[in-house]
Amino acid sequence: MLDNKIAIIGLGYVGLPLALAFGEKFKTLGFDINRKRIKELQNKNNSNLLSKKKSFYKSKKLKFSSNKKDLKNINIFIITVPTPIKNNKEPDLSYLYSASKIVGNCLKKNDLVIYESTVYPGLTEEKCVPFLEKFSGLKFNADFFVGYSPERISPGDGKDIKNINKVVSGSNPKTAKFVYDLYKKIIKAKVYKAISIKVAEASKVIENAQRDINISFINEISLICSRIGISTSDVLEAANTKWNFLNFKPGLVGGHCISVDPYYLTYKAKKLKYSPKVILSGRNINDQMGHYVARVLLKKLKKNNLKLSKCLVGILGVTFKENCNDLRGSKVLDIIKTLKKFKIKLNVYDPVVSKKDFNKHYPKLKIKKINKKLDALIVAVSHKEFLKLNYTKINNMLKNENSIVMDVKSIFNDKRIKNKFDYWSL
Amino acid sequence: MLDNKIAIIGLGYVGLPLALAFGEKFKTLGFDINRKRIKELQNKNNSNLLSKKKSFYKSKKLKFSSNKKDLKNINIFIITVPTPIKNNKEPDLSYLYSASKIVGNCLKKNDLVIYESTVYPGLTEEKCVPFLEKFSGLKFNADFFVGYSPERISPGDGKDIKNINKVVSGSNPKTAKFVYDLYKKIIKAKVYKAISIKVAEASKVIENAQRDINISFINEISLICSRIGISTSDVLEAANTKWNFLNFKPGLVGGHCISVDPYYLTYKAKKLKYSPKVILSGRNINDQMGHYVARVLLKKLKKNNLKLSKCLVGILGVTFKENCNDLRGSKVLDIIKTLKKFKIKLNVYDPVVSKKDFNKHYPKLKIKKINKKLDALIVAVSHKEFLKLNYTKINNMLKNENSIVMDVKSIFNDKRIKNKFDYWSL
Repeated sequence: MLDNKIAIIGLGYVGLPLALAFGEKFKTLGFDINRKRIKELQNKNNSNLLSKKKSFYKSKKLKFSSNKKDLKNINIFIITVPTPIKNNKEPDLSYLYSASKIVGNCLKKNDLVIYESTVYPGLTEEKCVPFLEKFSGLKFNADFFVGYSPERISPGDGKDIKNINKVVSGSNPKTAKFVYDLYKKIIKAKVYKAISIKVAEASKVIENAQRDINISFINEISLICSRIGISTSDVLEAANTKWNFLNFKPGLVGGHCISVDPYYLTYKAKKLKYSPKVILSGRNINDQMGHYVARVLLKKLKKNNLKLSKCLVGILGVTFKENCNDLRGSKVLDIIKTLKKFKIKLNVYDPVVSKKDFNKHYPKLKIKKINKKLDALIVAVSHKEFLKLNYTKINNMLKNENSIVMDVKSIFNDKRIKNKFDYWSL
Repeated sequence: MLDNKIAIIGLGYVGLPLALAFGEKFKTLGFDINRKRIKELQNKNNSNLLSKKKSFYKSKKLKFSSNKKDLKNINIFIITVPTPIKNNKEPDLSYLYSASKIVGNCLKKNDLVIYESTVYPGLTEEKCVPFLEKFSGLKFNADFFVGYSPERISPGDGKDIKNINKVVSGSNPKTAKFVYDLYKKIIKAKVYKAISIKVAEASKVIENAQRDINISFINEISLICSRIGISTSDVLEAANTKWNFLNFKPGLVGGHCISVDPYYLTYKAKKLKYSPKVILSGRNINDQMGHYVARVLLKKLKKNNLKLSKCLVGILGVTFKENCNDLRGSKVLDIIKTLKKFKIKLNVYDPVVSKKDFNKHYPKLKIKKINKKLDALIVAVSHKEFLKLNYTKINNMLKNENSIVMDVKSIFNDKRIKNKFDYWSL
């Protein structure tokens, strides 16, 4: 087993930790077509914060390359490229297909290709395998074999992939067993062999769709509570005393998983002539929450008789998740978009986001600490740094008692914040 | 405190256990307008199975009556009447209003009225209190006071109300404190004082709406899986290896809570000009599942080239929940309805349902053990007795290997059942 040579194709949030883990045991090649990324990793730097320097030193058998020639003597390819959505919310499979071509081109007899990217059920065998066959000239399940093992990386929460239960599957029972044994070498937690690739594919999309639906439900409750004139967090606190109430919070659902994966499932369902009701209604609610927060603020500012174009609004946090520098799919970008439409001046601060990434979206907007008195403060992401905010610090940022505090993540308990300002939480 | 005289108005699933609990400590009157029910309870019998004979003997200070005169010297009224929905799915508040009139007629200065019935946020103060004022001639929050404490009875699972955390609230802080102290006398678990009656009302409806949504999501997944051609339970088993996956199962959502309460919330939301997306889409899915199960069976029977009017189908379980004799809102009634439309012969069996209740729906259909060979068996409810079914017993009920086994609750693991017959599960 340990004499296998493994390549990880795609070294983002998913590929890098996997490459680092395999590189402790196997000769491993971390491959990415992005040369800059490879340079960075060769220098043991990792701009996405997930993997620590220490793990680069522990992964003694890992090398990085963007040179396709280096894939020639590999016999296990693990594809961990992104599977985002296009503007029309349909799956963008271009990365998956490019990676499949690259791998197809260097595939040899008895090689194994494992996909970790999130896909809809059936995609691996129906769409990716034909690429592998075409570019290798080899026959699936005779000359080469395929596995699927969905990634379960949870950015920013410090979980080590070795400690996360892993689902594996294979294109035939022997391959499934091999993929199981392979991951067993690096995963300390449970490795679960699914009955088929399709089942493993489905298990992954429904995990994130379930989370999406639960947050969308609480978001809908929050929309209703605000019309009733009661606080969502008061209602949730009471409901949470029930033994089986699920402790979800309202919030902005962004990122490249929860706000994306459900569309893979709904795409497949629609192809099979079933139009998902629950999943899509949840998606729609969650997709609108950024704009909703902005609209609530606009109403409040108008109520204060302020001229919108003269208002200064501070926004704390722009990434899609706390303590994570990933901006993909962040709904805070929607808040900014709506507020800018009304010419509101913005002071945006985020301690972890890459300024360059942010400026791709808003070139003229600088990420900087809040240094002027605000008409309103939106605390949009619960980065560690923002959890330290207290009454005095917030008071210092705000113009006066009419100033608005929008606590999107419900992080403030201090009654002085809730009572002194026009306090709002989702 | 202990010299208060308490009346429980409405002695169904909610009222009886509450009356039994209060009757251990307080002079308590269990009141119901249904004289037959009162007779039954005076004889320490309880047809709804929830409370055991032993608890009648322990509740020494409890008396039962259907005579309104007996309410005259009561000073705490607890209203536990049903709040069902009408055919148009809007709240049926008739029981709540009748009870409020009865109580209003005997309300005295400084009396307290506590509602336990599930309502939408605002209903107690906006709709019930006016009845109390009108029929008593007294003034709310000056002459009499109101509390709200949502019931959390879970029929059939054997939980004792003393061990279930209880949310309480009151029409002013003093009343809230009093209601808290009152329930503290009978609840061993946590008593949680909500900030307002509205918050307490909201907390209850969202609990059941959340459960409804989660089951509807899994039901939708099951609809998609069946089109993909994979087993939902295989997918759920894989997904359940993730640390935060929620272990819900597909199924028929009936009963007088989960399939009803969400409509109270959506009714209120619509009144406030918000049309709920997630909650209603979940309701719609769950509402259709009975008919869906029947349609799947019809397809399968046709595929077997059987003449529908000659088919004999067995149905095990008709109540809305396992080990509970309550038929209200049971989706098995929908299965029967659809199958009868196609003139299929039915053999329906349920060990706990009241035959009389069932015959109100289907006067000509007898509840009886399965005694003829079946073309299909639907195991619709996981009553204890049905969990004991095994391959041999099932084989004995079925005509041949083309016979269909529909395991709605996924209770069978035996591969022989799955492989020998045309096995289907939700």
